[in-house]
Amino acid sequence: MAKKPGFPKPKSWAEMAPLLVDVATGRRPADLVVRNGRWVNVHSGEIIAGTDLAITGGRFAYCGPNAAHAIGEGTKVVDAAGRYLVPGLCDAHMHVESGMVTVTEFARAVIPHGTTSMFVDPHEIANVLGLDGVRLMHDEAMAMPINVHVQMPSCVPSAPGLENAGASLAVADVAEAMTWPNIIGLGEVMNFPGVIANNAVMTGEIAATVRAGKTVGGHYASPDLGTAFHGYVAGGPEDDHEGTRAEDAIARVRQGMKAMLRLGSAWYDVASQIKAVTEQGLDPRNFILCTDDSHSGTLVHEGHMDRVVRHAIAQGLKPVTAIQMTTVNTAEHFRLGRELGSIAPGRLADFLIVSDLPTLKIDEVYGRGVKLAKGGRLTVDIPAYDYPRKSRNTVRLGRKLKAADFDIAAPAGANEVRVRVIGVIENQAPTRALQADLAVENGLVAMDRPNDVCQIALVERHRGTGAVTNAFVSGFGYMKDCAIASTVAHDSHHMIVVGTNKADMAKAANRLGEIGGGVVLIAEGRELALVEMPIAGLMSDERAEIVAEKADRLTRAMRDMGCSLNNAYMQHSLLALVVIPELRISDVGLVDVTTFQKVDLFV
Amino acid sequence: MAKKPGFPKPKSWAEMAPLLVDVATGRRPADLVVRNGRWVNVHSGEIIAGTDLAITGGRFAYCGPNAAHAIGEGTKVVDAAGRYLVPGLCDAHMHVESGMVTVTEFARAVIPHGTTSMFVDPHEIANVLGLDGVRLMHDEAMAMPINVHVQMPSCVPSAPGLENAGASLAVADVAEAMTWPNIIGLGEVMNFPGVIANNAVMTGEIAATVRAGKTVGGHYASPDLGTAFHGYVAGGPEDDHEGTRAEDAIARVRQGMKAMLRLGSAWYDVASQIKAVTEQGLDPRNFILCTDDSHSGTLVHEGHMDRVVRHAIAQGLKPVTAIQMTTVNTAEHFRLGRELGSIAPGRLADFLIVSDLPTLKIDEVYGRGVKLAKGGRLTVDIPAYDYPRKSRNTVRLGRKLKAADFDIAAPAGANEVRVRVIGVIENQAPTRALQADLAVENGLVAMDRPNDVCQIALVERHRGTGAVTNAFVSGFGYMKDCAIASTVAHDSHHMIVVGTNKADMAKAANRLGEIGGGVVLIAEGRELALVEMPIAGLMSDERAEIVAEKADRLTRAMRDMGCSLNNAYMQHSLLALVVIPELRISDVGLVDVTTFQKVDLFV
Repeated sequence: MAKKPGFPKPKSWAEMAPLLVDVATGRRPADLVVRNGRWVNVHSGEIIAGTDLAITGGRFAYCGPNAAHAIGEGTKVVDAAGRYLVPGLCDAHMHVESGMVTVTEFARAVIPHGTTSMFVDPHEIANVLGLDGVRLMHDEAMAMPINVHVQMPSCVPSAPGLENAGASLAVADVAEAMTWPNIIGLGEVMNFPGVIANNAVMTGEIAATVRAGKTVGGHYASPDLGTAFHGYVAGGPEDDHEGTRAEDAIARVRQGMKAMLRLGSAWYDVASQIKAVTEQGLDPRNFILCTDDSHSGTLVHEGHMDRVVRHAIAQGLKPVTAIQMTTVNTAEHFRLGRELGSIAPGRLADFLIVSDLPTLKIDEVYGRGVKLAKGGRLTVDIPAYDYPRKSRNTVRLGRKLKAADFDIAAPAGANEVRVRVIGVIENQAPTRALQADLAVENGLVAMDRPNDVCQIALVERHRGTGAVTNAFVSGFGYMKDCAIASTVAHDSHHMIVVGTNKADMAKAANRLGEIGGGVVLIAEGRELALVEMPIAGLMSDERAEIVAEKADRLTRAMRDMGCSLNNAYMQHSLLALVVIPELRISDVGLVDVTTFQKVDLFV
Repeated sequence: MAKKPGFPKPKSWAEMAPLLVDVATGRRPADLVVRNGRWVNVHSGEIIAGTDLAITGGRFAYCGPNAAHAIGEGTKVVDAAGRYLVPGLCDAHMHVESGMVTVTEFARAVIPHGTTSMFVDPHEIANVLGLDGVRLMHDEAMAMPINVHVQMPSCVPSAPGLENAGASLAVADVAEAMTWPNIIGLGEVMNFPGVIANNAVMTGEIAATVRAGKTVGGHYASPDLGTAFHGYVAGGPEDDHEGTRAEDAIARVRQGMKAMLRLGSAWYDVASQIKAVTEQGLDPRNFILCTDDSHSGTLVHEGHMDRVVRHAIAQGLKPVTAIQMTTVNTAEHFRLGRELGSIAPGRLADFLIVSDLPTLKIDEVYGRGVKLAKGGRLTVDIPAYDYPRKSRNTVRLGRKLKAADFDIAAPAGANEVRVRVIGVIENQAPTRALQADLAVENGLVAMDRPNDVCQIALVERHRGTGAVTNAFVSGFGYMKDCAIASTVAHDSHHMIVVGTNKADMAKAANRLGEIGGGVVLIAEGRELALVEMPIAGLMSDERAEIVAEKADRLTRAMRDMGCSLNNAYMQHSLLALVVIPELRISDVGLVDVTTFQKVDLFV
C-alpha cells in the first residue's frame, strides 16, 4: 500500500554510536563539517562563537571549537562564516489538512522556512477514513526527509450522537496505533467534558497512550479555570494549546502541563500568553510554540514556525528562549530530547544556518545532515506520495442532486414562518442562534436576500444515503445568485453547501461529487472558482503555491458575490462543528450546542 | 526470596485517573487535604501563597487555591499555616553501600531529611553477588515507602584482567535487568576509555539501555575536555557527576548532558561548578544535585539532600532553582516527570512542609500521601528487609590464616631489597608508586615502622582459594602493633588487611571470615573496633546510628594507633581500586595503574 520511503531515517544513536565516537575522536572522517558558526545552544542557553560541527550518517558526532580532526578526503566542508547555527524548528501541534495539501506538499512548503519536525494530528482524515486514513498519513510522514510524527486522533467523531462522521475510532484503535513506529502520542483530547465526566472512551484512550509511554495531547477550550479545569488536568492530558489569555498559560504551567502557544493562520494566542514569561517571569521551559492550523496561503506568503519565532521575539522574548520554545522544549515534551531539538552529539543533524537572529533570516536548512533548502528554496526533490484509490474516492452522494433537494417545505397552510438561523460572527468560531420570519411561496420557505438570510445544506457524503439537511444561515452577505460547496466541513466532513440559488447549490454539490471533493463556487450555473481536494475530500494533491492561488481565486469570487468576511471559507467549513456554540448543522439536523440537543428548524 | 513489600506503590496515574478527577471536581472526598501552604512550584518557578492540596490514593488530585470541595467526612485535614510545600527531594545518583547500611536503613536515615526518591547504583554488591545482588537491592528498594529506583551497574568487574571480582556482569545481564520493574537505567559508565575505544561490552550495554527507553548514567573522570571527552559524549552517556570545575559542568551541559553536581561525605563539587549558573548564567534546567557517597555518620549528623540544597542556596542559587535541581530536573532526566518531582496533579504525593526556605527547615515529610516523618523523626515503622542467607555468607577464606601467610620471602641470598610501596596521599583517591629499601631478616623482607612502611595484603575472599597477595604500603602512620582488615575493598571487594604485625593481620582476617565481613582493628591480639557488615561483607543490618557510632569508634582506634589521615578507613578501602593511578593491589598482584600492567614487588 505505502510507497517505499524516499528518505530513510538514519539508524538510531545507539546503533551508530561506534561510528559517531570514531568521528568525534578523529579516527574516521565526517560526512559533513560546518566550520566557524555561532552555536545557538538550547541546552545551556548560550550563543557560542567559533563552533564547528561534524556530522556523519545523519547525526551530529562532534559539536565544539575545532572539528579539523574530523575532516578527511570525502568530507564536505561548509563555512558558516560566523553565522548562527540554530536547531531545526519544530511545530508541536498542527493539522496538515488545514493547508489543504498532503504531508509531502506541506513539508515542501515549510522546509525552506526552517521546519524540520512536525507533530501532526490527522484528525480530519480520521473523520473520513478512520484508522486507515491515519495510517496513510502516518506512512506518508515516514517517507519525509524531515521528522513528521503523528498524534493519534482521540475524538472521532467529535460529538457522538450529534453527528455521524465517515468513521469512528475506539479505544482499541488507539491501542493499535500506539504500536505503529511513527505514532508519538494521543492527539488533542478535545472532548474535555468527557474527561471531566470520566467518559470511558476518553479514560481508556488516555490510559492506552500512557501505557505505551507516549504523550497525551490536550485541548481544554474553556475560559473556566475552576474545578472543571482541575478535573481535566487530573485526567492526564499533558499539554494544551487552547489558552488565549496570560492566566490560561500560567494556570496550565502551574499544574505541570505544557502551555502550547499558537500562532496559526487565524489563531493569535502568543502575544497575550507570552506575557506569563516576559512580564510574570515564569520559567520558560514549559512553554512551547505551535501553529495548529496554517492555510497554504500563509505557508507560501508568510512562513511557518519561523513566523512564530519572529513573532515571539517581537513580543520581547530573548531569541534563544524563543528558539528553545520551538526546539528543545518540544522535543523533550514528546520524549525525543535525545533524538532531535538541539545541536548536540547523537541527535539528528537538523539545523539552520541563520544570518540574523532576531529576524531569523534563514540562509540554509539541513535535515539529517542533508541540505534541504537554500535562500528560501528547496534544494532536494521530494516526490509526491502515492495515495491509494480508496482515499481518492470518498465523496459518495448516491445520486445526482437536483434543485428540489434543497426545497424547505413550510408547515401546511402557513404564509410566513419563524425559523432558526445560524448566525456567522466575524472573526470568531462560535455562531449565534438567530431567528427570522420568512415568507412562504408555493408551500416552500423562501430565502431573504435583503436581510442576508440564505440557505445552508448538509449533504451526507460518506455513505451515499442521498440525505440532505436543509436550514438557513446569515452573515455571509451573498447578494448574487450563487452557491459554495465544500467537503471540508469540520469535524465530520460531510458536504456543506451555502447558497442563494438552489440550482447553483445542486450544481455545486454534484460538481464536488464528480471530482472527489474540494471547494467550488457556482454562480448562475458558471464555475467561478474551484479547489480540488481529491484526497479524502480534504487535501489537494497539487503544489502548495497552486493551491494557495486557487484558494485566493475562491476568496476573490466569494467577495464578488458580496461576502466581506475575513475568513469566509473557514467560517463556511466550521458550520457543522457541533462542539462549539451556539447553533450548527449536522447530518442529524440542526443542533443547539449550548444544550447539546437537536432542535427543530421551525420555532 | 523477596519479602512481601510493606508499602505497596500506588496505582498508576492512568489507572487512578477517574478517582483523581472525582476528587478534583468535588464528586468524592480526598484522603488528605493540606490547607493554606506556600506552593513551591517547580514547573513555573513561582512560590504561590494560599495553596491547598487534595490527595487521594497516594497521588495529588488537586493543587490550587481552595480544596474545600474535596473535604468529606473521612478526609484528614492538615493546616500548613502559611508554611512552604516543597516536593520531596531526589538523590539522582548514589550508592547505598557507602553508608554501610541496607536500603531500608538508608531510607530510615534520610526520610526525616526530606529525601523521597533515590536513584541507587548497587555497584558494590554487584561485584560480590553479581546479578543476584542487584536483584536483592532492587527488591528491597521496591518495598520502601519512598521511591528507590535502581541503576543497573555497568562495569563489573571495573578492571577486567587486572582483578577477579566476586562476579561479573555481561551485556545479557544488563538486557535482562532492563526488564525488571524497578530498574531506571544504566549505572555510571565508568569505563570511559572503553566507551571512547568502542569496547563491545560498553557499546552493548548502552544500546540495551537505550532500547529499553531508559537513562544511561555517565562517569567521565578526567579533566581532559578535548576529543576524548567528545568521544565519550558521542557514545551516549546522558549525565555525569565526575566534574569538579565550572568548565566541566559547562562542557557537559553544552553537549546535551546533565551536569550532576555532587556533595557527598567526601565530595565537594557543588560550589565550584554551580558558578556555571550563578556567574555564567547557564540555563539551570540541566543541572542536578546528588550525593554519590554518604557515610552513615554524615546521614546521622549532617543530613542528605537537604544538606545539598542548603549548600547550593548558600552558594547564591535561588531557593526555587536549587529545589528544581533536586526535584523536577532529576525526575525529568529519568523520564519520571509525570510520576514524581513536583507538586502537581497525578504525581505521587511526595512533599515536605517547610517552615523556612533558605535553610530548608523541614517540619514534616510525606511520601505517597502518608506522613513519614515529623520534626526530624520517622513517624512510621519500616521493617528490616529479610536478606537471604546466601547474601550473608560471602566471606570465604577457605582456611584459617596464620601469621606466616603474610610472610614476604626475599630473593635468595639478599640482605636488603628494594620494593614497590603503595603511597597513600592525604585527601586524594590516587596513590603514589613509591619505592623503599627494606632489610631482610631470616629470609623475609621486614617492615620499616620508623619510615611508615607496613604491610598490605589482598586476601581472596570470594572463592575460598586461600590466596594472599602481600605487598607494602606507606602513609597510614601506624606506630603500634596492629592490623586493620576490611571486606569493603573497592571495587572487587576482596579483603584488604593493613598491619604492622602479622599475627594481628591473621587474627583480623580470620575475624572477618567468622562474622561474614566488615571492618576490624586488632592490636596486640585485642579487638579494639569492629563494624560488622554481614550482608555481602559490605553492609550492616543494624541501625544507621549504631553503625555511625561503631564507625566513629574505628576512626578513634585508628588514630590511637598513630594514623592521622582524615579519612583513613576510606583510604584503606580504596587501595585495591585498580582503575585509579598510580599503584594498587589486587588478587592478581601489584598493579601499575598508569600503564595498566601487573608489576613485581621487587624492583
